[in-house]
Amino acid sequence: MKTLTQKVHNFSAGPGILPQEVLQEAAEACINFDNLNLSLLEISHRSKNYVKVMDEARQIVKELFEVGDEYEVLYLGGGASLQFAMVPYNLLTENGYAAYLNTGVWASKAIKEASILGNVKVIASSEDKKFTYIPKNYTIPSDADYFHCTSNNTIYGTEMFEFPDSPVPMVCDMSSDIFSRKVDAKKFALIYAGAQKNMGPAGCTMVMVRKDILGKTGRKMLSMLDYRVHIKGESMYNTPPVFPVYVTLLTLRWLKRNGGISWIEERNKKKAEMLYQEIDRNTCFKGTVEKEDRSRMNVCFVTTKPEYEPLFDEWVKQYNISGIKGHRDVGGYRASLYNALPLESVEVLVEAMQEFEKKYAS
Amino acid sequence: MKTLTQKVHNFSAGPGILPQEVLQEAAEACINFDNLNLSLLEISHRSKNYVKVMDEARQIVKELFEVGDEYEVLYLGGGASLQFAMVPYNLLTENGYAAYLNTGVWASKAIKEASILGNVKVIASSEDKKFTYIPKNYTIPSDADYFHCTSNNTIYGTEMFEFPDSPVPMVCDMSSDIFSRKVDAKKFALIYAGAQKNMGPAGCTMVMVRKDILGKTGRKMLSMLDYRVHIKGESMYNTPPVFPVYVTLLTLRWLKRNGGISWIEERNKKKAEMLYQEIDRNTCFKGTVEKEDRSRMNVCFVTTKPEYEPLFDEWVKQYNISGIKGHRDVGGYRASLYNALPLESVEVLVEAMQEFEKKYAS
Repeated sequence: MKTLTQKVHNFSAGPGILPQEVLQEAAEACINFDNLNLSLLEISHRSKNYVKVMDEARQIVKELFEVGDEYEVLYLGGGASLQFAMVPYNLLTENGYAAYLNTGVWASKAIKEASILGNVKVIASSEDKKFTYIPKNYTIPSDADYFHCTSNNTIYGTEMFEFPDSPVPMVCDMSSDIFSRKVDAKKFALIYAGAQKNMGPAGCTMVMVRKDILGKTGRKMLSMLDYRVHIKGESMYNTPPVFPVYVTLLTLRWLKRNGGISWIEERNKKKAEMLYQEIDRNTCFKGTVEKEDRSRMNVCFVTTKPEYEPLFDEWVKQYNISGIKGHRDVGGYRASLYNALPLESVEVLVEAMQEFEKKYAS
Repeated sequence: MKTLTQKVHNFSAGPGILPQEVLQEAAEACINFDNLNLSLLEISHRSKNYVKVMDEARQIVKELFEVGDEYEVLYLGGGASLQFAMVPYNLLTENGYAAYLNTGVWASKAIKEASILGNVKVIASSEDKKFTYIPKNYTIPSDADYFHCTSNNTIYGTEMFEFPDSPVPMVCDMSSDIFSRKVDAKKFALIYAGAQKNMGPAGCTMVMVRKDILGKTGRKMLSMLDYRVHIKGESMYNTPPVFPVYVTLLTLRWLKRNGGISWIEERNKKKAEMLYQEIDRNTCFKGTVEKEDRSRMNVCFVTTKPEYEPLFDEWVKQYNISGIKGHRDVGGYRASLYNALPLESVEVLVEAMQEFEKKYAS
């Protein structure tokens, strides 16, 4: 196993940075898992060693969210995109409708899938201003089957810092800011998140669901799309994504061991404040979204003059800064400050921006 | 990274054994992938380094199957169990029906899911004799939308050594014997396989589909269940199971490098013959399925006297033999001889059986 010769500052929007110690443990498990002299990649998911992993990976989510046994936790394949379909498949009734908040590309995709299965009302949207803010002052209708929102919009860099009191089950796609800050999880009937941003590697999606909302649609359901089937199978109705779930557990253990949500929230606030402060100060850059809705996970910004962009692309290379190009749909820059990103990486980016300004704008 | 101190003979039915060198490469990639100084677990699936992985992983399947560009290869999450639903969702018309061959638990599950979506005819079944043989001499109706079969039955240990000439698109679940022997892939319109037996680790499922059979149902389709959406996205419509696909590629590269299908088929025949020969010779054991349908992948057997079973369970421990207990539904023993299992492991099992007979039955 080689030792790293260079430190890369990994601002990738996802799959995103994971703690170095988690990567080491993951590599170990590829060779010898749990001292079985077998790789985690070649043992039965029904072995007691792996059943323990799955149990703990399910339990730790409830601990971090501080919820009780009215909730069940699942790890499923297919990504959050499959949840865009599974949520309405499990919750949307034939004559009812679902209420959606449209805050960006991922919310739009969720709306599209729900519309294939039934009726959907978009009760508020920020599409009018290219999703650069979070809609407020909307009313969730009390006759909807459920209300769906996206807590953080990876592509545009907005984040919901307040969640409504919903009269109907509230469902949230937390893929890109799960466990980055304290939320009152009990407000939600269902939370889902692709692991590959703040929880672990690509290949599994966490679903936490309050059991009482299930089984009400009357729909005859395909087994793999039925949350109740997976709950009954304790998240092993079929072979789960063994390794991705394990690395997710390692990442959540890392979070818990270091101080949990309050620790990480403090750290994430500090990282985001530092970077936004520089964006606002620096004459070469400007932010792209409403200040009050600025995401702490995905910091989006552009150059104040177009000619700066190719220069800055080149400039950051000397700092070993990786993954800050904006999403192909919006351009500019996006620095993702997920849980595992150290403060030091933000300091380096800020320094790069300051030196860039000195060289090109003074 | 620890070095193994003990050799474990891994007969696990799945997730199953992988080549040692693949495990080493997988561990390396967890730390430093492609000399990027980043882990494969924390880089974008849209990075050029990973796009190359996905492209090669798709291409190598077509090479090994010797098919052309009329086929597309996908790697999807959710396991083969999700394919039980996706196959009829993509191929079964509202007024049509699908023809299924029922050869065991997995075939039955595939039938169940298809029945939720439309009409199904089971045209032959071996359920009458507890799935201990492969039905023959059935006729595939020429007005069916497609014909579905399971090439190898992991739980019962039977394998189809001949495939019919189907008048309708033939679909095959090859999860447990894919790339273990030469098959005429062009006979099939769709082949799918959970990776975790002969192809790689748990967490991704390979689907190879002939494009001309798609888009004929008129069904309004959920994106994630629509093969055409995944084909258009080059198997990256959404974030794929990054690491499982990579380890699958490593495993298929290993297969190709060592001589491909003809090499592995020879080796697999030798392993299976050696073990079946011992089962037939040894007075303490007997096989459980029709000789002509005996699987080369999953060798099922029982003890000739019930009192031998707990003794043999204990006995094999001294040989570092792991994973030979039969499936919980059928009991007895099942030694899985997947591609990566070395001949030496079979020799050790045979020796254990011989020594057991000497001690307890002579």
